[in-house]
Amino acid sequence: MEARTPPGRDGLGDLIGLEYLELTPEQVRARARVTDDLRQPFGLVHGGVFASMAESMCSRATWMAVRAEGMAAMGQSNNATFMRPITEGDIHATAHPRHRGRTTWVWDVEVNDDDGRLCGLARVTVAVRPIPSR
Amino acid sequence: MEARTPPGRDGLGDLIGLEYLELTPEQVRARARVTDDLRQPFGLVHGGVFASMAESMCSRATWMAVRAEGMAAMGQSNNATFMRPITEGDIHATAHPRHRGRTTWVWDVEVNDDDGRLCGLARVTVAVRPIPSR
Amino acid sequence: MEARTPPGRDGLGDLIGLEYLELTPEQVRARARVTDDLRQPFGLVHGGVFASMAESMCSRATWMAVRAEGMAAMGQSNNATFMRPITEGDIHATAHPRHRGRTTWVWDVEVNDDDGRLCGLARVTVAVRPIPSR
Amino acid sequence: MEARTPPGRDGLGDLIGLEYLELTPEQVRARARVTDDLRQPFGLVHGGVFASMAESMCSRATWMAVRAEGMAAMGQSNNATFMRPITEGDIHATAHPRHRGRTTWVWDVEVNDDDGRLCGLARVTVAVRPIPSR
Repeated sequence: MEARTPPGRDGLGDLIGLEYLELTPEQVRARARVTDDLRQPFGLVHGGVFASMAESMCSRATWMAVRAEGMAAMGQSNNATFMRPITEGDIHATAHPRHRGRTTWVWDVEVNDDDGRLCGLARVTVAVRPIPSR
Repeated sequence: MEARTPPGRDGLGDLIGLEYLELTPEQVRARARVTDDLRQPFGLVHGGVFASMAESMCSRATWMAVRAEGMAAMGQSNNATFMRPITEGDIHATAHPRHRGRTTWVWDVEVNDDDGRLCGLARVTVAVRPIPSR
Repeated sequence: MEARTPPGRDGLGDLIGLEYLELTPEQVRARARVTDDLRQPFGLVHGGVFASMAESMCSRATWMAVRAEGMAAMGQSNNATFMRPITEGDIHATAHPRHRGRTTWVWDVEVNDDDGRLCGLARVTVAVRPIPSR
Repeated sequence: MEARTPPGRDGLGDLIGLEYLELTPEQVRARARVTDDLRQPFGLVHGGVFASMAESMCSRATWMAVRAEGMAAMGQSNNATFMRPITEGDIHATAHPRHRGRTTWVWDVEVNDDDGRLCGLARVTVAVRPIPSR
């Protein structure tokens, strides 16, 4: 398990209650429970939650695949689209890589509600770079 | 002030420590202090923080402008690009509307570090719709 | 056939040689032959060709579905990502709707080369609006 | 002038009648005349024209800046948003670099009509890579 743990913790992932159900470079599934902390003023899940889940999932899975080569993985762009509000229950996100290049990976992420309805999409480009010195 | 407060609170905005310095439909400035809660595993500010700040700021400012007509404002898309990591200090975000349509507003958001360097950009499209029943 | 023809012709589609193989609101397949007119200076197919194909396909298919209600369909945003260059043969594009809302449709488009390799992705949001007066 | 000319011609740029008014790594201005070839079926300028102009302009200007180091510049992503239709006259596009990195440049492009109204925005990420062998 230590081999799969990045150098530090995912602070924002923890903050929003991100829980991984599956985590491989081929597929990532995760969820978060809707609470008032994740809602915007009109009672819907905040769009930033969708983007944050997608960013965490894709960066982490890319890093898992490239870490053996001494590389880090950091988000380069995150394009999220919101189609249907989620107001309660769990937020379910599933990510698949569409391109695994030497310098960038491109992922597609779907966000669904408890009834399996498509509520959001994100396309995340992750840059693969030498590990930065902190 | 009550006239400017949306129906509920911005849970995610509060969670990441979003603080408004200026909030009008013409310009929004806000900041958040970097803490471990906002960092991803490599010690950089999580890209989801940039997206979440932009989403909160643009949705709220749009709503301020359309609420008198009984409308709500909800993010429709959020395209964030990350160019330079932020590791400490404050995250500074500034948003300007580029289009104020009847059904959508389009905003540009810049994210800077304490030295004023451009670290991220987001383009947020906010849908203007009749207030949803909760 | 007249029932399927929009008011005018797709000038840019014609200009790049866009040819439809399948055109329904559930799936659109089209192709274009690579010529020097579609190449950028380094000999690769120009990214604008990918975006233009996607835009034509998604707008047209959306319009087919909403025209009976007297509505028009116009691109609202077009987010294209380029992963692998195409230099010769045909450009193959396939589009699927991911969301069919009252005011917007969201489409995913894949672009492949003759060997079926994924070369580009586009996410197109099409606005559904009353037909504009010309 | 030959020192500034990329290896080949910009086929798609020529096809849509792209004309440069200013071309430097700090700012690019270009225009295209609206003709039926650039219109979609409802008589508006096709969204692909906006994306194609932006792609040509940003790739070419980036290449001008990096060619001395033996590098090529190729579009990596092109996110276009359409706010106001153009139906006649000229399409005016202006591009500014927002980030000039070692491996990517990020540009913002504005598209205006003859009256100077903002009609579209594009954010283009250009990858800087060793020149590909053809």
